[in-house]
Amino acid sequence: MYFELEFPVRYYETDQMGIVHHSNYIRYFECARNGMMADAGYPIERCEEEGVTIPIVSVECKYKYPARMGDVLKVTASIEAAPMAKLVVKQSVYNQRGELCATGQVMLGFLNKETGRPTRCPEPLYKIIESRLTDR
Amino acid sequence: MYFELEFPVRYYETDQMGIVHHSNYIRYFECARNGMMADAGYPIERCEEEGVTIPIVSVECKYKYPARMGDVLKVTASIEAAPMAKLVVKQSVYNQRGELCATGQVMLGFLNKETGRPTRCPEPLYKIIESRLTDR
Amino acid sequence: MYFELEFPVRYYETDQMGIVHHSNYIRYFECARNGMMADAGYPIERCEEEGVTIPIVSVECKYKYPARMGDVLKVTASIEAAPMAKLVVKQSVYNQRGELCATGQVMLGFLNKETGRPTRCPEPLYKIIESRLTDR
Amino acid sequence: MYFELEFPVRYYETDQMGIVHHSNYIRYFECARNGMMADAGYPIERCEEEGVTIPIVSVECKYKYPARMGDVLKVTASIEAAPMAKLVVKQSVYNQRGELCATGQVMLGFLNKETGRPTRCPEPLYKIIESRLTDR
Repeated sequence: MYFELEFPVRYYETDQMGIVHHSNYIRYFECARNGMMADAGYPIERCEEEGVTIPIVSVECKYKYPARMGDVLKVTASIEAAPMAKLVVKQSVYNQRGELCATGQVMLGFLNKETGRPTRCPEPLYKIIESRLTDR
Repeated sequence: MYFELEFPVRYYETDQMGIVHHSNYIRYFECARNGMMADAGYPIERCEEEGVTIPIVSVECKYKYPARMGDVLKVTASIEAAPMAKLVVKQSVYNQRGELCATGQVMLGFLNKETGRPTRCPEPLYKIIESRLTDR
Repeated sequence: MYFELEFPVRYYETDQMGIVHHSNYIRYFECARNGMMADAGYPIERCEEEGVTIPIVSVECKYKYPARMGDVLKVTASIEAAPMAKLVVKQSVYNQRGELCATGQVMLGFLNKETGRPTRCPEPLYKIIESRLTDR
Repeated sequence: MYFELEFPVRYYETDQMGIVHHSNYIRYFECARNGMMADAGYPIERCEEEGVTIPIVSVECKYKYPARMGDVLKVTASIEAAPMAKLVVKQSVYNQRGELCATGQVMLGFLNKETGRPTRCPEPLYKIIESRLTDR
């Protein structure tokens, strides 16, 4: 399951080093993940409406090349295994010249919104992921 | 009713001009407003628990002098009139040398959380504000 | 001179009220302004390279209707008068149903990057604005 | 070398799940790191003035317990080894009840601001770190 999103750097995302502040890549990753889910017909807000929240368990990001104002970034998300208790998403950010700006991995869990307790991946989401595993 | 809060500029709040990005002053204002309410014994989260949300109606900010990394800012909030349908908060930001960085005004409304319709200022909040109008 | 930009709400832009935090509209406005300048062939980063920074003098925003996760926003910027010492940009945000979420006005100045002193609108930018005043 | 910083959650840091958005922990980490450097007499802005920037090489964060509006967080940074080419900072976030909200690790490099090339840890910073390794 694969998705990519293109968007320009926003001015407020830069810092006084003149580059995109490193925390924003974590946000870019989320945009691509949510874009992937919306594209698959299962947007994150529907998930929450159905009583399951998908909190972040862990985040890793390696910074390779700084992004700057004027850059148009391609941010990717991919899922390579059907989720059990956890969902692992691989992520990357490229600039418009194809330079790899960052790679990362985000692990998500599933919580029952009522009880706050861990639950399984909602069935419709599981099926969507499973059916798209071989994409890209 | 008056409150001030001191905090250092955070690195991620700077932009590539080397100054605090202008949008952050709107966030600073909110910190001082919420600090004022917590200090008065009526924190914003209690307000929401009691079924009233306090959405922003309008924001104005005039930028006088840039804040920078290393600055320790004093952010103020004051209320000079008991709220009717709307609550008006005057705000300012000073740096550690007493230079005025920004002034502003924020207008807030009161919404019933259930119905989403305008409502009055919750009674306990009204009383708190009224009793403190002459402060500072 | 007119420009509009479309983009989806980003999850991290929401707050615990379940709506886009009000400070983000100030950032949306900037995205549309910078998009307008890039579209006109004079991106903000070129301006800074040429020794002129364009600090914000003041910001006003009136909030009309909350934006939410799942919304695709149209953010507009328009300039209706050639800039003298100041540049005034009118701004708005609409959701995908055409509902007006916010309107605002941003005033910008021009500073010589070396001296930090007010300067005129750079000639190439002035010409671009003047030639496009009648657009839209 | 150890430092901790206390600050309340800011409203704009929450998201529609009602908790602090996960990207903000990366920003909290930075606040504690920069606080540590300022406390040691070598603030980050001095480092940049001396021609060395300290870009982020990688970030890891594990989320244990959500932070919420009303929480007063304690954010820690510690350095346990003198930096060679890289500086490793261990980080954590606790709430006011002592619950561990997150742990993480941030790796930083040193770049010559002129050439953009890797350089050593500036001598004064190295000495400060070395002399404080046994703290806490």
